Amino acid sequence: MKLEGYSIIGSSRSSGTNGTFQAQNPATGEALEPTYHAATEDELDRAIALAGEAFYTYGNSSSKTRAEFLRNIAGEIDTREEEIVERMMAESGLPEGRCRGEKGRTVGQLRMFAALVEEGSWVDARIDLAQPDRLPIPKPDLRSMRRPLGPVAVFCASNFPLAFSVAGGDTASALAAGCPVVVRAHSAHPGTAEIVGTAIQAAVAKSGLHEGVFSLIFDDGIALGQAIARHPGIHAIGFTGSRSGGRALMDLAAAREVPIPVFAEMSSVNPVFVLPGAMAERGEQIAEGLAGSVSLGVGQFCTSPGLVFTSGEGKDVFTQKLADGLGAVAPATMLHQGIARNFADGVSRLSAQAGVRKLAEVPADGCQAGPVLFQTSLPDFLSNPALSAEVFGPATLVIDCGSESDFTAAAQSLEGQLTATVHGTDSDLENAGPLLALLSQKAGRVIVNSFPTGVDVCSSMVHGGPYPATSDGSSSSVGTRAIDRFTRAVSWQGVPESLLPAELQSTNPLGIQRLVDGVPSRETT
Amino acid sequence: MKLEGYSIIGSSRSSGTNGTFQAQNPATGEALEPTYHAATEDELDRAIALAGEAFYTYGNSSSKTRAEFLRNIAGEIDTREEEIVERMMAESGLPEGRCRGEKGRTVGQLRMFAALVEEGSWVDARIDLAQPDRLPIPKPDLRSMRRPLGPVAVFCASNFPLAFSVAGGDTASALAAGCPVVVRAHSAHPGTAEIVGTAIQAAVAKSGLHEGVFSLIFDDGIALGQAIARHPGIHAIGFTGSRSGGRALMDLAAAREVPIPVFAEMSSVNPVFVLPGAMAERGEQIAEGLAGSVSLGVGQFCTSPGLVFTSGEGKDVFTQKLADGLGAVAPATMLHQGIARNFADGVSRLSAQAGVRKLAEVPADGCQAGPVLFQTSLPDFLSNPALSAEVFGPATLVIDCGSESDFTAAAQSLEGQLTATVHGTDSDLENAGPLLALLSQKAGRVIVNSFPTGVDVCSSMVHGGPYPATSDGSSSSVGTRAIDRFTRAVSWQGVPESLLPAELQSTNPLGIQRLVDGVPSRETT
Repeated sequence: MKLEGYSIIGSSRSSGTNGTFQAQNPATGEALEPTYHAATEDELDRAIALAGEAFYTYGNSSSKTRAEFLRNIAGEIDTREEEIVERMMAESGLPEGRCRGEKGRTVGQLRMFAALVEEGSWVDARIDLAQPDRLPIPKPDLRSMRRPLGPVAVFCASNFPLAFSVAGGDTASALAAGCPVVVRAHSAHPGTAEIVGTAIQAAVAKSGLHEGVFSLIFDDGIALGQAIARHPGIHAIGFTGSRSGGRALMDLAAAREVPIPVFAEMSSVNPVFVLPGAMAERGEQIAEGLAGSVSLGVGQFCTSPGLVFTSGEGKDVFTQKLADGLGAVAPATMLHQGIARNFADGVSRLSAQAGVRKLAEVPADGCQAGPVLFQTSLPDFLSNPALSAEVFGPATLVIDCGSESDFTAAAQSLEGQLTATVHGTDSDLENAGPLLALLSQKAGRVIVNSFPTGVDVCSSMVHGGPYPATSDGSSSSVGTRAIDRFTRAVSWQGVPESLLPAELQSTNPLGIQRLVDGVPSRETT
Repeated sequence: MKLEGYSIIGSSRSSGTNGTFQAQNPATGEALEPTYHAATEDELDRAIALAGEAFYTYGNSSSKTRAEFLRNIAGEIDTREEEIVERMMAESGLPEGRCRGEKGRTVGQLRMFAALVEEGSWVDARIDLAQPDRLPIPKPDLRSMRRPLGPVAVFCASNFPLAFSVAGGDTASALAAGCPVVVRAHSAHPGTAEIVGTAIQAAVAKSGLHEGVFSLIFDDGIALGQAIARHPGIHAIGFTGSRSGGRALMDLAAAREVPIPVFAEMSSVNPVFVLPGAMAERGEQIAEGLAGSVSLGVGQFCTSPGLVFTSGEGKDVFTQKLADGLGAVAPATMLHQGIARNFADGVSRLSAQAGVRKLAEVPADGCQAGPVLFQTSLPDFLSNPALSAEVFGPATLVIDCGSESDFTAAAQSLEGQLTATVHGTDSDLENAGPLLALLSQKAGRVIVNSFPTGVDVCSSMVHGGPYPATSDGSSSSVGTRAIDRFTRAVSWQGVPESLLPAELQSTNPLGIQRLVDGVPSRETT
C-alpha cells in the first residue's frame, strides 16, 4: 500500500497538520518516506467523539460480533505481512525473523482474545436468585458481570512495533472487552503503525461496525498525548514505555475532574538470584543462558535481566563466564537514536558510580549498542539507589553477595518488578521458600531455573507487578487477564430477562460458566 | 467492658496523646465518657510497622487460618452484642432494631468472607501446563493466582458504625485476602469502635496470629489520616464517606512516590425514573414506596434516592402523594451534629436555586432532620449542576420531564452513581432497553421496580460505580467482589510443587475450582 502520512479518524483520513516528522532507519540513519502529519486537537476531538458514539453499539455488541472482528483484524494483518515486515525492519532495525515472530504473536493475541470472548467465562457472570420468603427481608434477584469501561486510549511502545502497538495487547484486550480504541502511534515507527491501522480500519468495515471503534493518531511531541490523557471522553489508558512517560500520564489522569485508570507498563530491572548449589553445580551454564537473555533483542525487552545476585563457590568463574559470553556478542542496531543515546548515557552513569567495575563492554557507535557487564558489592548496591535504576539495553550488573542470607536484604531493597528469577538446585530450593515468598511480593512473575525474557501469552501470565514496574500492580498487560483492565462490574436487580445481557439470562443462551448462588455452574437457572 | 479511650496498637494499648475528644449523644447533646486520645505519629508508625511484620506470616497464611480468624471475630462481636448496641445507640442516635440489624449484617459479612476463602475459587487460580515440545519455543509451566497487596488502611464511615467501620466490609475483605489492617475509627462513634476493636484484638490472640494483623487508631482531625495515606507501609486504602474526603485521599495517594489504590465510596444521588405506564398504573404506590426509601434511616444511606424523574399522566398526583408521604414522616435524630448541619445547609442551598420549589418540609431542630421534597423542571435541572449535588439526608428532588424521551437526556447528564432505578410496566420496559443500557454505564447497579436502599450482601452485588460514586469504578465495597480490591495477580513459572501456594499445586489439595489450560476444572493436573 501507499503510505499517506495522515492520522486515521474512524473511516476517514485526517488532512490537518500540527507539525510533521519522518521515521528514520536506525541502521542507516536514512529518513523514510512519507512525511507524517501530527494530528490537530480538532482531529483528536473528532476521533474521541466518534469513539464515544461507537461505544453505544460496540459496548453492547455480542461476544460473537467482537470475536469475529478480532479475527478479521488478525486476517487483515496476515494479508499485509510482507509490507509490514519490510517497513518494520526499516523503521526498527529489528531482524526479519523477529519481525515475523512478532507478527505471529500479534495475530495470535488477537485470536486468543477472540476465543476468550467466545468462551465467555471472563465476564465473571454471577446470578443470585430471588428468595421472596427470606427473613427479615426478601432477597431480590441480583445478577452481575463485567462490562466495558468506554473509549480507551492506547500509547504504543517503541520496543514492540506490533505486539505492544497499534493492534497489540492493549488494543486487542480493550476491543475484546467492548471498548472503542484511540491509538497514539509511536513516532519511531509510524509506517508500521499506518499499515496496521489500515488493517484494523478494513476489519471495522468488514465487520460492519461503527467507524468510531478505532482511530489512529500520529504525533511526535507530548502535547497531544497530554490532551488525550486529559480528554473527558477517554475512560482508561494503556501505555508501554518509560517510567517518566508513564508517571506523567498517571499524574495527568489522577488530576482530572473525573480521574481515570492508567495501565502503564514502565520499568523493571528483573533481578536474578543464583543460589549457591546451582552456582557450584552449573554456574557456567547459567552464565551462558543469562548472556543470551541479557543480549536478546539488544536488551530491548521489558523483562531483560539487569541485576544478578551471586553467592557461593564458583561465583567468580560464573561472572567471568558471563563477561566472556556478553563480550562475544556482536553489537547490533537499537530501535532508534533516542534509545541508543539513553543506553550510552545509562552505561556512563553506572560506570561513574562508586564501587562499580566494568567487566566487559562491546564497543559500538551510532545507533548500535553492545553488551556491557558491571559488577559491584552488596553494600555498595544497598547504599546507592542509582545502581538499581533501569538501563534499557544490553547491560547488567552483578552484585557480589557474601552469602545466600544476604539475598533477603537484597530482595527487600528492591522496587516493584515485572519479574524475579531464582536459579537453584532442589536442595537450594528447599530453603528458598522465604526468598520466593518475598519475591512474589516484589514482582508480578517469579521464575525458577529459567530466564525472564520469554513472556508466554496465556491465561496464567502476569506481565505486571508493583510500581514502578507498572502503574497498577494488580493488572497484567499480557495474556487473557489483560482484558480485566478495561472493564467494571455492573449489577442488575429485578431486571426482566429480555433486558438482561445474554450472559445473565436464566436460560444461559451462551452456555457460559457462571456463579449461581455462589456455585460455579453452566446450567440454566 | 470499661472503655479506655486509647488506640489499639497490635496487642497493646497506646498511651500517647495527640489531643483529646469525646463522642456526643446526638439525641441529647450529652458528652459521652471516656475521653478519647488521638494517636501520635509514633504510634501510627508502630501500628504500620507491626502490620508490615505481620504480613510476612499472615499474607502467606492458609485459607483455613483466615476463615477461622474471621469467624472468631464474628464470635467475639456476637458475645459483645449488648454493650455494642447500647453504646452504638448512644453514639449514633440509631434505633435499637437498626443497631441489632447492622450487627447481624456485620457478623454475616465476616462469615461470608470466611466461607469465600474456604471455597477458594475467588483466588482465580490458573494453571498452564508446560509443553516442552511446542514450536517455535517450548511452553513453560505457568501458574497464577490473586495474592494480598500488603497492609491496608481502612477509614470508618459515619453512617454505618458497624457494617462499614472497624470490622465492616473493608476490613473483612482485606483480612480475608490476607492483608493486615490499620483502621482509623470515626470520631463520632469511638466507643463502638473500641468495643469492636477489642473483639478483633481478642480474635487475633485466639487465632494465634501476629499482633500486627490489626490496629485501631483514634483521631478527630485530618492530619493523622493524611499521614496514613502518605505512609510507605500502607499498600491500599478503603474509605466510605464524603466526596471531598475521598478525593483528598485519592489525591494524596496518587502523589506518593509509590502511588497506591484508594477504594473510596463517596457520593451518589441515585436517580429514579418512573416510566409513563407505571406512573399511570401505580404511581401512588410507587410514591409511597419512594417516601419510605427516601426517609429510611433519616436518609443516611449512600443509596438514598435523591433524584426522581417523572413523566406521563398521573405525575402530578404522584408528586403530591410523595409530598404527603414524606410530609407525614416524623423528624428523627441524625448521626451527628455535623451531618445535621450539612443537611440543613444542603436544603437551604437547594431551596435557593432558580426554578426549584419546595413541596414538603417536615420541620426539625437540633440534631434532628425531617424529610424535604423539592421539584424542578428538566431544563432547570440540565442547566444547573448544583441540582444534582448530593444532599445527604432525607431530601429528594422531583424533575418534571415533558415526556419519556427526555429521560435519555436526563440520564446522559448524570455523573457516576451507585445505583439507578427504573419503574415501568412490562410494556414500558419493552422500549426501555436503551435507557437501561445508558444507566448501566452511569451506575454500579441498575434496579427495576424496586428501591435502591436495600443493598444485599452477596456475590452478585456491585456497590460501586463510576466516579464520583466511587474512586475506582471497577470495584465493589459490598459482597464477595470486595475482596478483589486488596489483591494482585502473581504468576509462578517453573516453580517446584513444594514451593507453590497450595491453590496452585498439581494435586489441588484444597479441591478448588481452577482454570487449567484455559478450561474450568477441579481436577488434579
